[in-house]
Amino acid sequence: MSDVKKVVLAYSGGLDTSVIVKWLQETYNCEVVTFTADIGQGEEVEPARTKAQTLGVKEIYIEDLREEFARDYVYPMFRANTIYEGEYLLGTSIARPLIAKRLIEIANETGADAISHGATGKGNDQVRFELGAYALKPGVKVIAPWREWDLTSREKLMAYCEQHDIPVDFSSKKKKSPYSMDANLLHISYEGGILEDPWAEAEEDMWRWSVSPEAAPDQPTYVELTYDQGDITAIDGQAMQPHEVVEKLNKLGGDNGIGRLDIVENRYVGMKSRGCYETPGGSIMLRAHRAIESLTLDREEAHLKDELMPKYAEVIYNGYWWSPERRMLQAAIDETQKNVSGVVRMKLYKGSATVVGRKSDASLFDESIATFEDDAGAYDQKDAEGFIKLNALRLRIAAGKGRKQS
Amino acid sequence: MSDVKKVVLAYSGGLDTSVIVKWLQETYNCEVVTFTADIGQGEEVEPARTKAQTLGVKEIYIEDLREEFARDYVYPMFRANTIYEGEYLLGTSIARPLIAKRLIEIANETGADAISHGATGKGNDQVRFELGAYALKPGVKVIAPWREWDLTSREKLMAYCEQHDIPVDFSSKKKKSPYSMDANLLHISYEGGILEDPWAEAEEDMWRWSVSPEAAPDQPTYVELTYDQGDITAIDGQAMQPHEVVEKLNKLGGDNGIGRLDIVENRYVGMKSRGCYETPGGSIMLRAHRAIESLTLDREEAHLKDELMPKYAEVIYNGYWWSPERRMLQAAIDETQKNVSGVVRMKLYKGSATVVGRKSDASLFDESIATFEDDAGAYDQKDAEGFIKLNALRLRIAAGKGRKQS
Amino acid sequence: MSDVKKVVLAYSGGLDTSVIVKWLQETYNCEVVTFTADIGQGEEVEPARTKAQTLGVKEIYIEDLREEFARDYVYPMFRANTIYEGEYLLGTSIARPLIAKRLIEIANETGADAISHGATGKGNDQVRFELGAYALKPGVKVIAPWREWDLTSREKLMAYCEQHDIPVDFSSKKKKSPYSMDANLLHISYEGGILEDPWAEAEEDMWRWSVSPEAAPDQPTYVELTYDQGDITAIDGQAMQPHEVVEKLNKLGGDNGIGRLDIVENRYVGMKSRGCYETPGGSIMLRAHRAIESLTLDREEAHLKDELMPKYAEVIYNGYWWSPERRMLQAAIDETQKNVSGVVRMKLYKGSATVVGRKSDASLFDESIATFEDDAGAYDQKDAEGFIKLNALRLRIAAGKGRKQS
Amino acid sequence: MSDVKKVVLAYSGGLDTSVIVKWLQETYNCEVVTFTADIGQGEEVEPARTKAQTLGVKEIYIEDLREEFARDYVYPMFRANTIYEGEYLLGTSIARPLIAKRLIEIANETGADAISHGATGKGNDQVRFELGAYALKPGVKVIAPWREWDLTSREKLMAYCEQHDIPVDFSSKKKKSPYSMDANLLHISYEGGILEDPWAEAEEDMWRWSVSPEAAPDQPTYVELTYDQGDITAIDGQAMQPHEVVEKLNKLGGDNGIGRLDIVENRYVGMKSRGCYETPGGSIMLRAHRAIESLTLDREEAHLKDELMPKYAEVIYNGYWWSPERRMLQAAIDETQKNVSGVVRMKLYKGSATVVGRKSDASLFDESIATFEDDAGAYDQKDAEGFIKLNALRLRIAAGKGRKQS
Repeated sequence: MSDVKKVVLAYSGGLDTSVIVKWLQETYNCEVVTFTADIGQGEEVEPARTKAQTLGVKEIYIEDLREEFARDYVYPMFRANTIYEGEYLLGTSIARPLIAKRLIEIANETGADAISHGATGKGNDQVRFELGAYALKPGVKVIAPWREWDLTSREKLMAYCEQHDIPVDFSSKKKKSPYSMDANLLHISYEGGILEDPWAEAEEDMWRWSVSPEAAPDQPTYVELTYDQGDITAIDGQAMQPHEVVEKLNKLGGDNGIGRLDIVENRYVGMKSRGCYETPGGSIMLRAHRAIESLTLDREEAHLKDELMPKYAEVIYNGYWWSPERRMLQAAIDETQKNVSGVVRMKLYKGSATVVGRKSDASLFDESIATFEDDAGAYDQKDAEGFIKLNALRLRIAAGKGRKQS
Repeated sequence: MSDVKKVVLAYSGGLDTSVIVKWLQETYNCEVVTFTADIGQGEEVEPARTKAQTLGVKEIYIEDLREEFARDYVYPMFRANTIYEGEYLLGTSIARPLIAKRLIEIANETGADAISHGATGKGNDQVRFELGAYALKPGVKVIAPWREWDLTSREKLMAYCEQHDIPVDFSSKKKKSPYSMDANLLHISYEGGILEDPWAEAEEDMWRWSVSPEAAPDQPTYVELTYDQGDITAIDGQAMQPHEVVEKLNKLGGDNGIGRLDIVENRYVGMKSRGCYETPGGSIMLRAHRAIESLTLDREEAHLKDELMPKYAEVIYNGYWWSPERRMLQAAIDETQKNVSGVVRMKLYKGSATVVGRKSDASLFDESIATFEDDAGAYDQKDAEGFIKLNALRLRIAAGKGRKQS
Repeated sequence: MSDVKKVVLAYSGGLDTSVIVKWLQETYNCEVVTFTADIGQGEEVEPARTKAQTLGVKEIYIEDLREEFARDYVYPMFRANTIYEGEYLLGTSIARPLIAKRLIEIANETGADAISHGATGKGNDQVRFELGAYALKPGVKVIAPWREWDLTSREKLMAYCEQHDIPVDFSSKKKKSPYSMDANLLHISYEGGILEDPWAEAEEDMWRWSVSPEAAPDQPTYVELTYDQGDITAIDGQAMQPHEVVEKLNKLGGDNGIGRLDIVENRYVGMKSRGCYETPGGSIMLRAHRAIESLTLDREEAHLKDELMPKYAEVIYNGYWWSPERRMLQAAIDETQKNVSGVVRMKLYKGSATVVGRKSDASLFDESIATFEDDAGAYDQKDAEGFIKLNALRLRIAAGKGRKQS
Repeated sequence: MSDVKKVVLAYSGGLDTSVIVKWLQETYNCEVVTFTADIGQGEEVEPARTKAQTLGVKEIYIEDLREEFARDYVYPMFRANTIYEGEYLLGTSIARPLIAKRLIEIANETGADAISHGATGKGNDQVRFELGAYALKPGVKVIAPWREWDLTSREKLMAYCEQHDIPVDFSSKKKKSPYSMDANLLHISYEGGILEDPWAEAEEDMWRWSVSPEAAPDQPTYVELTYDQGDITAIDGQAMQPHEVVEKLNKLGGDNGIGRLDIVENRYVGMKSRGCYETPGGSIMLRAHRAIESLTLDREEAHLKDELMPKYAEVIYNGYWWSPERRMLQAAIDETQKNVSGVVRMKLYKGSATVVGRKSDASLFDESIATFEDDAGAYDQKDAEGFIKLNALRLRIAAGKGRKQS
């Protein structure tokens, strides 16, 4: 074992990370600092304090990061209309860089030389935590117990608890679910259990954040979202902070059966996995943002954003938030958002969030040009001939030289 | 007027293109050949024969192109998961290259030196028709009456009809709608009328191909789509031709309120326009194709497809189907589809088409690797450490040299 | 003729644009304002004053724009390592946006409602001037005489001069060349004449800015370029303004036979054309900038820059400097240049500019890691195994399922 | 040690890989099969037979792969104008996939369960060998001695030789160089020694394949390259096989001081390294291929190729030749080469390879359109107005709405 004096652990207060506290103390003979954050997962974080104390932890950090998470991570990501592999809204991925940053900041504050987390050796989260940590503190030691220890089954874990007097009620309720779950302000995810068969449909009682479309109200809900420079600043005319916006839209979306997703995705570590996600607010935000951009973005910047988006999504999914390439892409994206302001009206109904209206003082939509009616010179239809002829020129030359076009 | 002897006209049988027949005969003093195609627009094409005869047309082409359209245009496009500007399924765009190709082939058969169409000077369709025509026959003369004549209002058109004895019942019923509409096997589109205000919600009675989500059945419909090399070959186990597949999915989608879209898009000719679309079958096909790919495509080819897709969509939207760049992109896309075979199970319910299962003999999903349970060596979790450390190396070096990462 | 009161003309003082002054006065019965700029073309601009006066022009603008050109156009472009179609350094393209901007600013100052230029209807320059003008003043009227008048041959032009008492010695010397030439601080271009046969080698006496490699000194010249945030700020330790840098490197390059280029390029208006270019300084700058970036840029931002570069080059070549997409790309590029500082040492010899050394305080090169010798833990070679194994995982799974890899 | 019965080793016949033979036999107690290939490195391969026999190897493979290497690897790569990070012609990278493929094929023939190579744990080559091996035989065991053993210095290696009776004259001459070198048909590379200081200029006596530009002939050499579908098939009219083409161009280039490169590059394993390369033939081929494409490729496919090239280069550099993404990109690239046929004339002179002429029966260059002289209707200059106006429309609308363009 390398020489570690103090380690900051991302501590949920649940059974697994409680075992890690003990295991770190014992294996590395080091002090453990716990860090527990409210990032909107919908569970109390304060109970983690007593649990940590029980485990002999002296430095305990418990923080409400919901607003920072929404403002500095979720919002910038939605400016890019980010989707991974055409479907996934990156709910888990986007929370990791903030945790990594706080782990490192706390390590610096407490003089710790290592950080630790409870992510397994097969998933993306270990990568996201550790890339972030290394980027922010290159000499940090990272301890990933799931890659090191031999507590590789539930039985062994429970035996370890008994041996070390770790109260089993540390086990959070959600762990009794057959699914591996993870939640934050933006989404809740489900993996494992019957989902490991990609042909099997998820059971209705798995979903926790939304009613089924069938159980949603028979009347649609309309909602108006106000944008300022790419970000939502008000709902139905009421100004809100970013994290309030996401919470409110989660409620509205969840009530209307919106945001369920069932996909097979490609992990950065190389295998495919099947996951189910509920992202009620994010699903609304994605469509609404595209709608306000449809009025206010220039065509070519919109298309360029679309071409860059898959790369940007991959960067975040793979854990490279704290990287020069992410900052470079963000600079391009943010440059386009200066005029992305206005209001989008959406209809929420039994699983669908559809755009039904959009308006903006910065709108580039020009009725007088787009109209099919007579117009007075704003657009000369005869220009189209030259436009087409010169655009066709290269094709005509090629065809004239006998090139086959089909 | 330049010297034109014979012109092939894309003739719908409706009032506008009937006026064009007459106007071409009169203005250019030339023979007109009409070409009317069933590309799944849902209207009889045979009546166009009598109408054309009434107008003095001697060479009349009436064809059923539904299968060619589905097989050679719609299907290849869906292999790419093509969407324009994040929303539009390119229903209009994808039909134009086939029409252009037939216009030119008929011109070659009949010895015509020109082609003509009824698209306006403000839209994308003129571009798509003409780029295709020039690419396939570089010396062809193109006549676009709407860019030339002065019949620029409905009143003038009607006066022209009266003057030239064109029966007004040539006006198809759909033209009585306040909307400008266009339909084919893949979709129906609506523009104009109150849609010219992007804040105004489309009226329920505008939509023709789908019931509203509210009016759709209270019970979901499940459907299984069989893929072979990227293309759907059977529905619920029943083998079908491509055009039957699209028709069947249009029915299933339309019955369940699926496929309505309301967007502001950027036209190639430079302005924004607002359009509403119904693409019931296509909306199902898009999600299903992504689902079968999620099992069968390698991660990196999937990501590369996603990066190329916006360009491919732009190429089609702008009218460059018959171009070297489309063939180049198609070659890349088709290369990836060899193993895209299997079955996708979807749930259709009140406006939503959701994937609930997927399976494939060519699946790259490996339960034994993805599982959270113990595994016997298929994947060594310790490998993750090296993977992360080397991926982090460039970030660590930069941080070690004092580069700020945030 | 539409109603034009006053027009600002990009006036070189040569014969062609002198004819345009007269033709505008006569055809449009309007006042002409001339604008003549020194952008480093190597000809006196002051003589244009007397010529314009002779032609009856009252408002005459003559300006030295060399520094603005180098600082705000050439330098930002070189930050992106910009090359069009793998070869062309965009010497002509990059000068047009500045001319367009000044034309519009002068139009605003003088109350002119139109601008005019001497570019032909076949080239890229008309597009670049006019896109810039429209982007900066959307209602401006653009007059492009070469697309309008019938003075389409040298004979007709000379006849017009005689008729209108335009002194023929207005014809600048360079026009006696068989080539169409254009020069500015960054380069000189040659088109036409025997170059219209792409198999014909350019004649030695065509080239004006560089000696032939054969005639260059037998001893190499070494030069050191100091970079600060992506821009050259000193040569051989001597601080210089941007335009002085380019001039100095033109001299050094030209003396050593560097910067000749002979290509066939694709014009935006649709045809291929053959051009020869001399860009002595720019050719040195391109390689030197890549060299300083090789030390100071992160790998992923460097690769992303390379992927975006062709698009950025196309945007500039096609005339879209004044566009949202250029600003978006520039934001991404500039974001990466914060640490691109240091010194590059180059060897100039008989046509070649080769990098022989580079150093930087912001270097990311780490001898202790890159070395082949023993090292003390900075890099653990065993990490490579995990790195490779996880990167190979998707390929192994595919091969294990029988996918062919070749 | 895991259970290995027989291992196929990439054996150069030099000292290092001879040590590996012995080390494998001893450490793994397994049989070793040696594989030595002539891929144009310019050294005899036959002597490797006796050396292997001396070491007790029973199955010895010695093969001439020059033609396969040139035809199936070098040629396809040059169709894409491939350059890594703007400079590097991928000489080392492109040879590895072929070695990996033969290692696996021989493993299959001889019933071996493992492969081994002499690449270190810090470089790219280990990745390239192993990714290829895993892709082609997913269950293969890979042994990378440099990542495992403790013979980490020259002294330890020599001691091992003495201990195990390995004749020291196995040490090939090139190993006496202070540089780490690697050569094949396409190039020779140099790393290490004084090159580890990126500010230090390489010494003249390091270079082995080319004379210095200073020492090259005072008269230029002209050469004509004939292309057929993207590949060179003849030099100066004389038909040649691919590997003869590369050899001939290496000779011509080397004699004229062409192809030296001195760069800092970003390795896939995360650090920067400085390398010098001589690629005489490849440097000529790159420019010539661009020249024949400049005549024969459509603009848009050319630009798309340029946008894809950096990705394709990265794929090869990182070792993913045997991957779906490489095949996907290759399909796109090869689709464009059907008409890339003709002749390019080049001038070779003291370090520079410049294009001075190009011709093709499939040329898309049209003098009648490109000319500055009067033309008879092939191109109507008035079309340019409409072309520009519609392309400017989105910019005008934005400016008209008060958007700032600068």
